[in-house]
Amino acid sequence: MKLSEIVEVLELKIELSQDIEIEKINTLKDAKDGEISFLQNSKYSSELKTTNASAVLLSPKDAKYIPEKTIPLLVDEPYIALAKLSKYFATPLEISEESRVKPEIGEESVIAKNVFLGSNVKIGKGSQILHNTYIGDNVVIGDYSIIYPNTTVYKETIIGNSVIIHSGTVVGSDGFGFATTKHGEHIKIYQNGNVVIEDGVEIGSNTSIDRAVFNSTFIRKGARIDNLVQIAHNCDIGVGVVLAAQSGVAGSSKLGRNVVMGGQSGITGHVRIAPFSTITARSGVTKSIKTSGRYWSGFPAVEHKNWLKLQAKISKFFNKG
Amino acid sequence: MKLSEIVEVLELKIELSQDIEIEKINTLKDAKDGEISFLQNSKYSSELKTTNASAVLLSPKDAKYIPEKTIPLLVDEPYIALAKLSKYFATPLEISEESRVKPEIGEESVIAKNVFLGSNVKIGKGSQILHNTYIGDNVVIGDYSIIYPNTTVYKETIIGNSVIIHSGTVVGSDGFGFATTKHGEHIKIYQNGNVVIEDGVEIGSNTSIDRAVFNSTFIRKGARIDNLVQIAHNCDIGVGVVLAAQSGVAGSSKLGRNVVMGGQSGITGHVRIAPFSTITARSGVTKSIKTSGRYWSGFPAVEHKNWLKLQAKISKFFNKG
Amino acid sequence: MKLSEIVEVLELKIELSQDIEIEKINTLKDAKDGEISFLQNSKYSSELKTTNASAVLLSPKDAKYIPEKTIPLLVDEPYIALAKLSKYFATPLEISEESRVKPEIGEESVIAKNVFLGSNVKIGKGSQILHNTYIGDNVVIGDYSIIYPNTTVYKETIIGNSVIIHSGTVVGSDGFGFATTKHGEHIKIYQNGNVVIEDGVEIGSNTSIDRAVFNSTFIRKGARIDNLVQIAHNCDIGVGVVLAAQSGVAGSSKLGRNVVMGGQSGITGHVRIAPFSTITARSGVTKSIKTSGRYWSGFPAVEHKNWLKLQAKISKFFNKG
Repeated sequence: MKLSEIVEVLELKIELSQDIEIEKINTLKDAKDGEISFLQNSKYSSELKTTNASAVLLSPKDAKYIPEKTIPLLVDEPYIALAKLSKYFATPLEISEESRVKPEIGEESVIAKNVFLGSNVKIGKGSQILHNTYIGDNVVIGDYSIIYPNTTVYKETIIGNSVIIHSGTVVGSDGFGFATTKHGEHIKIYQNGNVVIEDGVEIGSNTSIDRAVFNSTFIRKGARIDNLVQIAHNCDIGVGVVLAAQSGVAGSSKLGRNVVMGGQSGITGHVRIAPFSTITARSGVTKSIKTSGRYWSGFPAVEHKNWLKLQAKISKFFNKG
Repeated sequence: MKLSEIVEVLELKIELSQDIEIEKINTLKDAKDGEISFLQNSKYSSELKTTNASAVLLSPKDAKYIPEKTIPLLVDEPYIALAKLSKYFATPLEISEESRVKPEIGEESVIAKNVFLGSNVKIGKGSQILHNTYIGDNVVIGDYSIIYPNTTVYKETIIGNSVIIHSGTVVGSDGFGFATTKHGEHIKIYQNGNVVIEDGVEIGSNTSIDRAVFNSTFIRKGARIDNLVQIAHNCDIGVGVVLAAQSGVAGSSKLGRNVVMGGQSGITGHVRIAPFSTITARSGVTKSIKTSGRYWSGFPAVEHKNWLKLQAKISKFFNKG
Repeated sequence: MKLSEIVEVLELKIELSQDIEIEKINTLKDAKDGEISFLQNSKYSSELKTTNASAVLLSPKDAKYIPEKTIPLLVDEPYIALAKLSKYFATPLEISEESRVKPEIGEESVIAKNVFLGSNVKIGKGSQILHNTYIGDNVVIGDYSIIYPNTTVYKETIIGNSVIIHSGTVVGSDGFGFATTKHGEHIKIYQNGNVVIEDGVEIGSNTSIDRAVFNSTFIRKGARIDNLVQIAHNCDIGVGVVLAAQSGVAGSSKLGRNVVMGGQSGITGHVRIAPFSTITARSGVTKSIKTSGRYWSGFPAVEHKNWLKLQAKISKFFNKG
């Protein structure tokens, strides 16, 4: 999309000295040349100063922080402008039947009846896709993977080798993203990223893994995800992580290798969890965990040993009288 | 169904002075002329006094409160009688293939392969129903709506314009209703209502929205519902409400406009939540919230600022010693 | 599988005095003649002493407890050996199309379009299997049962009469079982058991019920299970039990008759809950409950009346100052 078209669809009153092609929306941190970004909160102005984005949507008050080579697009509400713009970067829901590229399917892979394979799907050898499963456009699945019946894999998902996904699980549905106007109306932020599931991962039934808003949601090698688990957009679930049933991870959080989450536990968004941390069942983590290898309990979660002590003290104190 | 037939199927020993047609079971409050209702708990006898129902199932002890024009059907256990009767008011699971009325589908709407469209389905223009989705009898879907693959929309659901429903979501499954006998046996209360989803709503993946027992479960304009959310029968989810992943609302609760529920939070049944209330992540609301615009935390939920203070005090008190 | 083949696939350096046929892996307690078992934790050595297993995988240190007639298979890590072995006892994902045994379907049962019926499926009379549902190999379904659209029933599941299963529910997916090596790698323990659902059970939408690792996961007569509920492998959900939405039961727990779990509550693994216990909404039970008929609240759950008192004391104490 041309920058001039962006100026037009957002109805901006600015004159461009040069027109360029914009390929993608991205964060200030990750944006490269040829990409557009946004600054909603002045708190992150340091990221603006060092961004490589070619253009940035931002408030007039933050314009002073913009790097010389970056084009400022001044708007009253950058997040609303981002939402409006995101729609134009969305790929079609499905490529029309006439234009579909035939799937490539490796030796000894079995595609059951009533499986839908979208355009340009690539499946390795020895994989099995069971009945009534949906595989969207441009999905890649490796060797010896099993997708159980009634599973949904949205477009552009990348799945490695020896992955198992159980029935009812949805991979790549839209992240929960919207900008809310002053009048309480929500404007969808199109989720133009994807999901990447690495080798050896097993995912239970009725789990939801959302695609990234930009870039990818990652499930790293050998992770084990149980039933009814929620993984929000842009999470990075580390190597060998174990997520028990009904646990949930909010958006953009990053779990180090071999983190364990007990059943019905939760982790808030935008935090990092040190490797080998264990979040016990029904606990809720509200901050990053920086020391690895410890147990965490309660809500807001504290170190398990301290939680035990606190519970014991509360019981003792109040039961004595 | 004739009132005389109701007397017969419930094996009541009463003589009717007149026979009338009963069209529906309803609550005492909502019942109109030609409808039957029930009183299980004397606590609600004031609703009996003012009901417009043509007949009411009730215990002999409550008979004195019945309005003059309403016919009393005396039973030992009104709720059990209601459950037994509900079956007779259920529409068929699916209209038989021969009797099906052909769907009406608007211009530029796309119905993918292996989508099932029941009898008398109406779909507006520009909508897309993706693969392996089930659309039950008498469902209405408006314009420019998207139903992702492997979604299930039960009979009689009404969906507006520009609605998005992600994969694995089930709309209109039976509410969790039954009457339990003294012997611990559960008798199903057939859920004869439906679900109404208004314009501009987006619903994530693997979410469950139950049909009403009578009347409708409502999802109002522009609401945003995330993945793995539970919405029980007869809820009314207000305009612009935001329900984050794994949150749940129990039966018959009413959320005012722009209420926000954080991830893994819950609201009990039969309460009202004032507009612009925020229920923080992992909190559980056990009572109606009457003042709008506040934050609520903990379980049982209290005002967020008080919860923070209480948490701080507990920590300080027990950690000093 | 011959015992000599087991010795071979596990690369054990032992010489067998006799070779026997091993039919199944099982627990020490449940194993019969012709079955193999394992002892991971010396704590359970009493179960080793009385086992009827024909062979047991165990550490050299526990060899002294083995009964005379049982063959010891000494390994460094019995649980890892079990995981490696479990794969060889798994039945095929699906019997190949050529070898499939035609389903037996009773009078007046209706199988909708795009339903997949695996090999050797047996369905009684008057049952309805709705669209896009998957019924795996060797599944048995009784009379007058209803399986709603987009439901998945894995191989070998047994479903009784008058059972209702709502859309999106998955019955018989693999339990969450793996052995973790010292290097943090997870080795799948194949789940070779099944699920048994007795007569008169109703299950809501998007619920997950896992198959047993060995033997069966049971849902007993007349139980009522709501939406988005997690039931892990080897649970035994008693007669008339009620599980409200988003509740979860971890592996191998046994709920007595008419136990009630409120919404978003949880029960840990390997415990027994006495009949007629009520676990209130959002509570978490961490131990067996031995006295029947009581209410339990909080996390870790205590008797409801004590929880109420404790909450009141905490509030009073901290709010006075």
